[in-house]
Amino acid sequence: MSQVQKDWAALAEKFHRQYGGKIEISLKAPITTLDDFSIWYTPGVAEPSKRIYQGGEDLSFEYTWRWNAAAVISDGSRVLGLGDIGPAAGLPVMEGKAMLFKYLGGVDAFPLVIREKDPDKFIYIVKSLEPSFGAVNLEDIASPKCFYILEKLQQMLDIFVWHDDQQGTSLVVMAGLLNALKLTGRKIENTRFVIFGTGAANISNYKYLKAFGARPDNIIAIDIKGVLHRERPDLEQMKRENPWEYQIAVETNPENIKEIPKAFEGADVVIAFSKPGPGVIKKEWISRMNKDPIVIAGANPVPEIWPWEAKEAGAKIVATGRTDLPNQLNNSLGFPAVFRGVLTVRARKMTDELLLAAATAIAKYTEETGMHEERIIGTMEETELYVREAIAVAERAMELGLARRKLSRSELEKEIRELVERPKKMTKALLDSGLIKPMDQLGNIPQQR
Amino acid sequence: MSQVQKDWAALAEKFHRQYGGKIEISLKAPITTLDDFSIWYTPGVAEPSKRIYQGGEDLSFEYTWRWNAAAVISDGSRVLGLGDIGPAAGLPVMEGKAMLFKYLGGVDAFPLVIREKDPDKFIYIVKSLEPSFGAVNLEDIASPKCFYILEKLQQMLDIFVWHDDQQGTSLVVMAGLLNALKLTGRKIENTRFVIFGTGAANISNYKYLKAFGARPDNIIAIDIKGVLHRERPDLEQMKRENPWEYQIAVETNPENIKEIPKAFEGADVVIAFSKPGPGVIKKEWISRMNKDPIVIAGANPVPEIWPWEAKEAGAKIVATGRTDLPNQLNNSLGFPAVFRGVLTVRARKMTDELLLAAATAIAKYTEETGMHEERIIGTMEETELYVREAIAVAERAMELGLARRKLSRSELEKEIRELVERPKKMTKALLDSGLIKPMDQLGNIPQQR
Repeated sequence: MSQVQKDWAALAEKFHRQYGGKIEISLKAPITTLDDFSIWYTPGVAEPSKRIYQGGEDLSFEYTWRWNAAAVISDGSRVLGLGDIGPAAGLPVMEGKAMLFKYLGGVDAFPLVIREKDPDKFIYIVKSLEPSFGAVNLEDIASPKCFYILEKLQQMLDIFVWHDDQQGTSLVVMAGLLNALKLTGRKIENTRFVIFGTGAANISNYKYLKAFGARPDNIIAIDIKGVLHRERPDLEQMKRENPWEYQIAVETNPENIKEIPKAFEGADVVIAFSKPGPGVIKKEWISRMNKDPIVIAGANPVPEIWPWEAKEAGAKIVATGRTDLPNQLNNSLGFPAVFRGVLTVRARKMTDELLLAAATAIAKYTEETGMHEERIIGTMEETELYVREAIAVAERAMELGLARRKLSRSELEKEIRELVERPKKMTKALLDSGLIKPMDQLGNIPQQR
Repeated sequence: MSQVQKDWAALAEKFHRQYGGKIEISLKAPITTLDDFSIWYTPGVAEPSKRIYQGGEDLSFEYTWRWNAAAVISDGSRVLGLGDIGPAAGLPVMEGKAMLFKYLGGVDAFPLVIREKDPDKFIYIVKSLEPSFGAVNLEDIASPKCFYILEKLQQMLDIFVWHDDQQGTSLVVMAGLLNALKLTGRKIENTRFVIFGTGAANISNYKYLKAFGARPDNIIAIDIKGVLHRERPDLEQMKRENPWEYQIAVETNPENIKEIPKAFEGADVVIAFSKPGPGVIKKEWISRMNKDPIVIAGANPVPEIWPWEAKEAGAKIVATGRTDLPNQLNNSLGFPAVFRGVLTVRARKMTDELLLAAATAIAKYTEETGMHEERIIGTMEETELYVREAIAVAERAMELGLARRKLSRSELEKEIRELVERPKKMTKALLDSGLIKPMDQLGNIPQQR
């Protein structure tokens, strides 16, 4: 396993350097003669500016790239598993995210890393930038300040704001969970959960489990110090410093269970987003769960327990974050299509209903295209999944009155399909014309700068 | 004339809407299989991030698009001739600028409009975004706060910061002026100037006239209230509110001339950036100037005096901002190549010497390719001008110790030429493959979104 990881690292080091990054700006409108500058710049451009000034800011979605522009924003305070490495070191990740946004969702995302530690100043900065884009994707911001930042920005901004480490993860977890529950004949309201880890992902998962109908009485959460219960000595400190985790502590675990093995006793599902395994979740714990339990082990690069170990201990369905294992719960199945949907209808807000619509669409698509224990969720190769998911989100946003635009189902589908397919065609056209060089033709010196 | 303007406005309104803006994000590196995601995103991307964290922020230029990324930043407080129309209404202009940056200079520029009136907060915001890009182009910020903002940001940021309404204008004015002086047999240190208007452009022009060797004793400036002299009743107020204009008032006009016609008496050059004409500068004033005077009438869309009127009054050389007249002093001859040069060598600072190098390169290129009274400066069609100018800037930055990278002349030329040519090739490839539709094939409904 370590050999494989080493290769990705070496390849990434080499190719990031040789290509000089991963995205660039491209013209979307033609310039064929100098006269065209008079349309796209002065004097012509004064007209769209005047119209926006006179007709209101919403017209900026009509005359600029704003309708399709999303900022991928981070302070670099919790980048991947690397911790607080700062904004400049976070930039490769944010640029990579922007690349996925474009390639998978047709979204014009660009990375913005912000050198600001204070949450309120960070919020102020992002708010001031609002007219520059149509949606915001927050990324790799330390917990618990990420919850505060997200809540404030969702209140203050008149565009869609999403934190992918929260919503993006919850979206694919919920999508996979819905199908895993179907496959094991469970109803969510009667299902008992162990939430293992209380970082951004699981605090968000807790919220959306409830939104999907899970009952707090049926949930027990475990953090780095053990089971969350009402007699924990750090409860008051938690209330002050991480009210989001505190809320879980007081709402769940009615029997006040204090031991981890006991928490697993009789549980149907464990949702783990804690620290890289293996061996973080013990086989012995899994074996205490109800019959045919569901194990979601989300840590990267190595899940909290290997799937084969979980299965030996009785697990019926296991999902992880890994590409090379079945049931990969990959955020890339979520955010590109969600943003595609909300940008297409120019949504004003993010609400839980939009996430539910997206998760349901992913689950349904997977079910219709062949669901089984090793396929509770589709893969990144299935373009149709993205189209269906984006349409579902866009329709829900219109129903909820969150959309600036109203489109018929067929208009929606046409626009979304074109935009999802466009970046693949662009990349192919640029490869065909030699403007993007294949990796094996790069040689050892930088070629594209 | 009004008919022509009306057409540009109508075309711009239509095409901005139909194309949904002018730029988009494109992949610069290939994705051909899902495996490639493991290089560009997790797990591979952790390696470039680690390297930057361990090796220092400068490595972010090595592993991300930062080496070629420039932000076009505005608060929308003085957009074109439209005034304080705000950030959202300014976005079409900033996006247009980004388009020119890419098409003419191969620079990955993206528009950022900031909803912030307070100069210090604006500065704070831009500073916090510094790790996101390799250079900053400020645009359409009201005078006099633009001077303060520029000075502070140039001090605080460790990347190149430029305000195109100042430096960009001065660059092309100085380039044209150098050749106009040659053609009329003048030396700048003995040349007498009238500076007509004291907005961002002319306050900057005053600074660079001095940098090029003009003597303040030979300069008289005129603002909206008349000639700047030492007995102006508003001098103390000016000192407080616009110290940049105040400096001109106290350094120039040693004879304390108070009447505009008298200011023109014996002048060799008038540099006007004031308000749209015609008739803002009178023929009678021109006729009072020295023999073979040089008239730079920069107001848009109509110059302060029509060239034929200036010539009737004795002008030898007239330059304006208009595409449809000879000697167009167009900022687009400047900023794309300047940024191309400084980004290629990853310059840490903007200094006056870089502007002098650029202006000299433009002037020299024009001289070598056929300079005459109706061609004191090249045109946007001359790609070679951009290449030469960018090389001159890059070399000067290296000489001055401002560059993070050292390249030989031939390496510089190769990289710069490729990057200047790339966007034209990209646009052609996308047009050829139907991914950018020609304007005449758009029909009346939006096609590309």
